[in-house]
Order: sequence, then C-alpha cells, then structure tokens
Amino acid sequence: MQLSVTGIHMNKDQYITLAHGNGGRFMRELIEQLFARHLHNPLLDVQTDAMNLGKMDGEIIFSVDGFTVQPLEFPGGDIGSLAVHGTVNDLAVSGAIPRYLSLSAIIEEGLLIRDLERYIISMARAAENAGVVIVTGDTKVVPRGHGGGLYLTTTGIGIKKSGVNLGIQRIQPGDHILVSGSVGDHGTCVMLAREAFGLRGDLQSDSACIVPLADQLTEFDGLKFMRDPTRGGLATVLHELAGLSGYSFMLQEEQIPVQDPVRTVCEMLGYDPLYLACEGRLVAIVAAEQSAAALTALQQLEDGQRAAIIGEVGQQGGDVILRTALGGERILDELEDDPLPRIC
Amino acid sequence: MQLSVTGIHMNKDQYITLAHGNGGRFMRELIEQLFARHLHNPLLDVQTDAMNLGKMDGEIIFSVDGFTVQPLEFPGGDIGSLAVHGTVNDLAVSGAIPRYLSLSAIIEEGLLIRDLERYIISMARAAENAGVVIVTGDTKVVPRGHGGGLYLTTTGIGIKKSGVNLGIQRIQPGDHILVSGSVGDHGTCVMLAREAFGLRGDLQSDSACIVPLADQLTEFDGLKFMRDPTRGGLATVLHELAGLSGYSFMLQEEQIPVQDPVRTVCEMLGYDPLYLACEGRLVAIVAAEQSAAALTALQQLEDGQRAAIIGEVGQQGGDVILRTALGGERILDELEDDPLPRIC
Repeated sequence: MQLSVTGIHMNKDQYITLAHGNGGRFMRELIEQLFARHLHNPLLDVQTDAMNLGKMDGEIIFSVDGFTVQPLEFPGGDIGSLAVHGTVNDLAVSGAIPRYLSLSAIIEEGLLIRDLERYIISMARAAENAGVVIVTGDTKVVPRGHGGGLYLTTTGIGIKKSGVNLGIQRIQPGDHILVSGSVGDHGTCVMLAREAFGLRGDLQSDSACIVPLADQLTEFDGLKFMRDPTRGGLATVLHELAGLSGYSFMLQEEQIPVQDPVRTVCEMLGYDPLYLACEGRLVAIVAAEQSAAALTALQQLEDGQRAAIIGEVGQQGGDVILRTALGGERILDELEDDPLPRIC
Repeated sequence: MQLSVTGIHMNKDQYITLAHGNGGRFMRELIEQLFARHLHNPLLDVQTDAMNLGKMDGEIIFSVDGFTVQPLEFPGGDIGSLAVHGTVNDLAVSGAIPRYLSLSAIIEEGLLIRDLERYIISMARAAENAGVVIVTGDTKVVPRGHGGGLYLTTTGIGIKKSGVNLGIQRIQPGDHILVSGSVGDHGTCVMLAREAFGLRGDLQSDSACIVPLADQLTEFDGLKFMRDPTRGGLATVLHELAGLSGYSFMLQEEQIPVQDPVRTVCEMLGYDPLYLACEGRLVAIVAAEQSAAALTALQQLEDGQRAAIIGEVGQQGGDVILRTALGGERILDELEDDPLPRIC
C-alpha cells in the first residue's frame, strides 16, 4: 500500500472500474483515499509490498479466513467488520493475543465506491476495537459478473499467551461444554437479510470480537479447548471435536441458548439452529470443577450474559448426542448436503 | 485445515458444489483429499483454525497478494504457482527469507475438481521449490456466476536477512537500474492465452521464484532497493520510485530486454511492454561502482541470463524518462485508464 493521502479527490458516487485494478493512477488513488486513509496506522506508512513487523517475542500464531458473505451488509455488521472478527476470533480461541492483520480485497467492477468506503470504515473500527492493526494489503478488480461485489481475505498474526495450554488431547470425559451466548443468530440474520423468504425481523448478527471472552477463560487452568462455531455452527464444531478426541459429546437441548426469533425462523424454514453459523460466540471445554466459575466470568461480560453450560464430554464413542428435556436422545450427524452458501 | 487423509475417495471428475463450502462432510473431504493431501507438511497436521509457528528469531516480514488471473492456466504456469511466486517474491525483494504461507481459496461452483487438484499440485511444487510451507488455509465456495473459477490469496511470513539494508531513502543520483530479465512476458502470455485476439505463440510466462536472484544481490552492500515489476510493469515500479524518491529515473530503451514475440504482439495490439506485468523478474537499484559485479552475479543464474543494466538514477525531478537509441526522450507517465484486467 501507498505512503500517504494525496492527489485529487475521488468522486465516491462513482463505481469501481477495471482501471482501479491496473496498478496505475486509479488504483493508487483508490488505495490512498480509501484503504490507507481509513486503515491508517504508523506501520502502514511504508513504500514496499511487504511490511517489517520487527522482532516478536513469544510463539507466533498464524490464521487465515476468506469472506464472501451475501448480502455485504446485514443487521449487526457487514463484510468489513466480519472479516476482522473472523480472523481475530480464530487467533483468540487458539490462546493468542491478536496483533496484526493483512487484507486482500477482490472487488467486482460496478461496486459503488461509497459502499466500499463504508465497509473499509467498518473494518477499521472493528480492528481498533479488537486491538489489531491492518498492516499490509492488496486489491484486485474483477470484471462485472465475476465477483460478488466484494470478497475479502484476512490473515492474522498473534502471540501465544504464555501459560495457556490448549489442545484436543487435554479433553477428558466429564469436562463441561460451555457456549458464550445464543447460537445461530448470524446464519439466521443473513438468511433474512437476503429477503428471499419474505421474512423480516429485528434479529441482529452476533458478529463480534470474542477476545474479551477468551481472555476471561484463559485465566482458568482447567480450560482445555476453545473454538468459535462459525460455518456449520455449534454442531459442526462439536462433531469435529468428537471425531478427533474419540469421545462422545452429550448436549442438554434446553440448556443451549437459542433466541426465539431464530427458533421461529428455523422451524418455518426447516433449518436447525445448531448447524447455523455464529460469528461472535465461543465454545469452550472446561474441567468440571472450574466450569461454574468460568461461566460466571463469562456472564460478567456484556457479550457473555447468555453464556451457558450446555453439556459434558462423555465416554468413548465419537458422537454428538442431543438429550431433550423429555429424556429422548438424538445424534447430531455431520452436516451433509445442506448448503446455506455465502454465510461468512 | 483437517488432520489427515481419510474417508471415501472423491470422484474428481465431478464439479465443485455449494455443499463443498458448508463446513460439513463435503468440505472436509475436499480439504482432506485435495488441499491437505498435496500441501501436506508436518506443520499442517493440526486441529485448529490457527497455526502455531513457534518462536521466530529476527525481524518478521509480512506480505499479502490476491490472484484472479484469467485464464487459470497459461503457458509457463497457472494460478497455483503464480500465487506462490507472487507472495514469495514480495518477501524476497524486501530482503527477507520466505518461510510460511497461508492460503485462502474462493472457489466457484462448477469448477471441475480435477482442475482444482492440478492447481493445488502446482502450488505445492512451487512452494517446495521456493522453500516455503503452506501452513494454514481456508476455502469458500461461491455460487456459479459469482466467481472466476478460482481466486486465491496468499499471505507470507519471512525473516529479514541480517545485514541487508534496503530502502528508497538510500537511492542516490548515479545509482544504476538493473532488471533480471526480459519484461512484459507474463502480461503478453496471459493476453494470448485468452485467445481473444486470434494470436498464438510459443511465448511463456516468466512466472517464477526470484529468491535465488535476490539472494545473489543481497551479497552486495551497494544494493539499495529491489522490487518485482508485476501489475503495471517496469514503468509503474519506476514511476513509483521516482515519485517517492524525488529523483528522475533515466532508462536507455535499447538496453531493456524485451523478447521479440512480446515486442511484435505489443506493436500489433497497441500495448507497451514496459507497462505489462512480469511475474518472475526483479528490478534493483545498485550503487554504480558495484553494478557490473551485481550484473555478473545475476547472469550466472539460469533466470538471470538476460539481466541488464537499463539506466540510472538522475537528478531531482520525479519523472521516468526513456532515452531512445537515436537520442530522443520520452516521459513514461503513470498508467491511467488502460486496463488489462485479471493479469495476476
């Protein structure tokens, strides 16, 4: 990215053209007046295609995520904030302190420049809130009909918190399963925002930075594992953990927080909220003797008020089993051909 | 990415569907049987969305590039190898030793799985050749008509070579400008591969890893600056350097290596090879007293046989000036509305 904000001002009521991707003046102005201006930070002030981060103490954690959400804006967020939260959250659940992001933007010809600017501003705010800086970037423009308006990829670098030891191999029968809030909000919200179903509501995406939640939990040495349940939702995360650990995961259905509008929409459309994406929740496996204290710690945070203990790790088996209030049991299978595309 | 290669074998004569992006079984199989299988390395064997790289000594260099080249395959390369070379080369010209890459793949519904596998194999070979490992990744699938087959983003981490001090502020009048080989090959080759002009030829893209070239040059303390002339070509790189340094950059037209087929195609279609992308070349600014030795060092490498000293840094001015063999002068302006989209 470029050094500084110079040159004539872009007309932001114009649209992205192929010339904004050709390496020349239009591209330079786009980068200077939108990306560099809003993502401005001391480290971005360089003149090369690569960024020197200096020496970093501690173990380095590296994570990447692509974002193709449709629509680009939805109640509670947009692709800009989502792209920051997604990668920052992956670092946080690994027990890392997120530090730096890179950004790759693939922009479709015809995107309104003012809309692009709004997503960049949203990204800048989310980064500031999460305590990360976006230090290097790249933009490409693809012809009309070859993109979805805007695709983003963020890659994050974090530093492992010392003394935090997380891993599937630490999970044992009897451990408790915690979730930091209601599940399926983001997936349901994005579905509704597409207006494809003629349904509207005041449901908001849960898209958020979960660093404060993870920070609370890493104070407990009984914390075994964390993950953010994005694509495929809570059921998919637990299914993966069950498969890798070899243990079954037992859930109490009535303990799992699901918002009423999410439940209603899912019942109408035949979706299961346990398989729908969250973008600001955390699932944690915690030793039973510390789970009550860990729950209290989560509930003291604004984003953790609806946190709950939703089940426990069972014996060998590798299944995810949902127990209903009436005593029935249902196996939550791995998600198959049930796509809800471009949810994140 | 997932742990291991398991489960039933995919039918690679099938096409990517939206279910390959939903977080469930089809996505897991795609990742296990294509990405993890071919990009396999010890570090990829983890069970989280983030990778622990351990402690790293030295200054950390971070760089990102998106790749949207069309067509996905062209003589001399494909989007897979290009995506490795692009980011590795950005690290190399910063004076770093490339170490790790992350990969984000945005795949369009309808891509033949066998084609996708070919690009991944190409990427694996390019990474091995460049001495980097692809340690973490993410895949998304977008609906038919919302992508270009495949878009890739790679983000690289390198370690700054100690004792190498590069920067625009070191450039002085009298420094020599070197290029490691012929310019415009990649841009011309991709244009021809589109078959839009009814022209065919045996021209190959120059897409390659320039780490060995950069390694040679960093032995010289008179090396001031390096850059790879990708989008916008040689002229755009020099225009940026001229603007940032304040000096004019004087080029001798007949010294700039341009392959005959590139010259011929550009003359027919009205392109200037100095503005067309290279993907395996290096431009260097070297103190005059060391430029002959630096040139010899480049020419000893297979990819540097056509290296040349193409001009020198002039006095204050900030222009890029092309001197012809007949003594004429032409200012190479900043590229404006002359897009050749999806060249990289």
